Amino acid sequence: MSEPLQIGLVLFPKVTQLDFTGPLQVFSSVPGAKVHLIWKRIEPVASDTPLVLTPTVSFADCPQLDVICVPGGIGSDDMINDEEMLDFLRRQAVGAKYITSVCTGSLVLGAAGLLQGYRAATHWTAMEYLSSFGAVPTKTRVCVDRNRVTGGGVTAGIDFALTLVSMMVDQKAAEAVQLRLEYNPAPPFNAGSPDTAPAELVAMFKEKIAPSRQRRGDAIARAAARLEQRKISAA
Amino acid sequence: MSEPLQIGLVLFPKVTQLDFTGPLQVFSSVPGAKVHLIWKRIEPVASDTPLVLTPTVSFADCPQLDVICVPGGIGSDDMINDEEMLDFLRRQAVGAKYITSVCTGSLVLGAAGLLQGYRAATHWTAMEYLSSFGAVPTKTRVCVDRNRVTGGGVTAGIDFALTLVSMMVDQKAAEAVQLRLEYNPAPPFNAGSPDTAPAELVAMFKEKIAPSRQRRGDAIARAAARLEQRKISAA
Repeated sequence: MSEPLQIGLVLFPKVTQLDFTGPLQVFSSVPGAKVHLIWKRIEPVASDTPLVLTPTVSFADCPQLDVICVPGGIGSDDMINDEEMLDFLRRQAVGAKYITSVCTGSLVLGAAGLLQGYRAATHWTAMEYLSSFGAVPTKTRVCVDRNRVTGGGVTAGIDFALTLVSMMVDQKAAEAVQLRLEYNPAPPFNAGSPDTAPAELVAMFKEKIAPSRQRRGDAIARAAARLEQRKISAA
Repeated sequence: MSEPLQIGLVLFPKVTQLDFTGPLQVFSSVPGAKVHLIWKRIEPVASDTPLVLTPTVSFADCPQLDVICVPGGIGSDDMINDEEMLDFLRRQAVGAKYITSVCTGSLVLGAAGLLQGYRAATHWTAMEYLSSFGAVPTKTRVCVDRNRVTGGGVTAGIDFALTLVSMMVDQKAAEAVQLRLEYNPAPPFNAGSPDTAPAELVAMFKEKIAPSRQRRGDAIARAAARLEQRKISAA
């Protein structure tokens, strides 16, 4: 790939900051990569933690990207019905070499019509929504289907980004980043997946997120209807 | 522990942002935790990536913390000789329940005189410097010695933070966070440690960082002499 490699991560209010700070650290460690943090305007955006995020470029001023990446978080529920965001993604997707996401960012790609007929990953609690946008839900840490590369929940962003670096540059480049970031994980517990976590913890977690799932389901239904309407208008 | 649990992560120019954004995501997911991002002044600080970091509180206005955490990065080489930072850490350490770090943040704790006689972890490239401050270099992902909890390089911050949550609250609380963050890592390659990475990659990496190691060595020598002088003055 030609240099600089233009990599863009979109931001939005209530993004899960680790969804993109993991990939950001990986991508920024690649020689010859230029990384952009993109939002509608150049003004700070609140994340889901006390960290406020400052974009480096606006939608309007963003150059054509080689990689467009959408992180997830509770704020993605608003983004799936945000035409300004969806238009930006569709516009960039025309020339981008890789169209990517972490966590529920794949729902935003889906709402933009960019995952129709593609396998995709997402956070384990959101898997069922992917088919609303014609994507094939795929339970894997990193899902590669042609030039769509989607990661699972939150921390999967690190595995996703290393995988993408190996595809864009080569395995050696990805390994050099992994060594620098000492990415040799050793989780102290084994609760990182609903398949390995204690059953009562999974049940408690599902109960806790029930209200936000209701809101997400409603937003997905609206976004899916909007995408359908768009297809009919285009036909 | 009483609520809110006051957790503070210090920031500084050229911090490796993933050193603290990992722990930040974990700590912010703990019910009843109040997380502060701390710097000399409330003004944005440049990280080692395009992400600019905005503190939430200044050294002067920071409440007594239950947990003080120092991340690492190339900027830590300046912090080990920064009296304002070292004084802040010493002041907080008096009342803090846990004194902690990620990556080369342990060198800053060491320079503040807070690791004398303690085992500690750090980034694999910095292990040899810990003994300059009377700490016992310990090659482990997360090192717990009494109330000093120190993580290895960069991504070890996630393992560190989950371990600390299990100590401060309980294992169930840590597992709930792990499930939410889908922390079920699957590195695509096996180069996350100098013990597993290809030997030629480790050699290349060491050669690349040689100039910055020279600078780090000089800064460590100055910081160690300064700490020694302080001990003599206090005696």
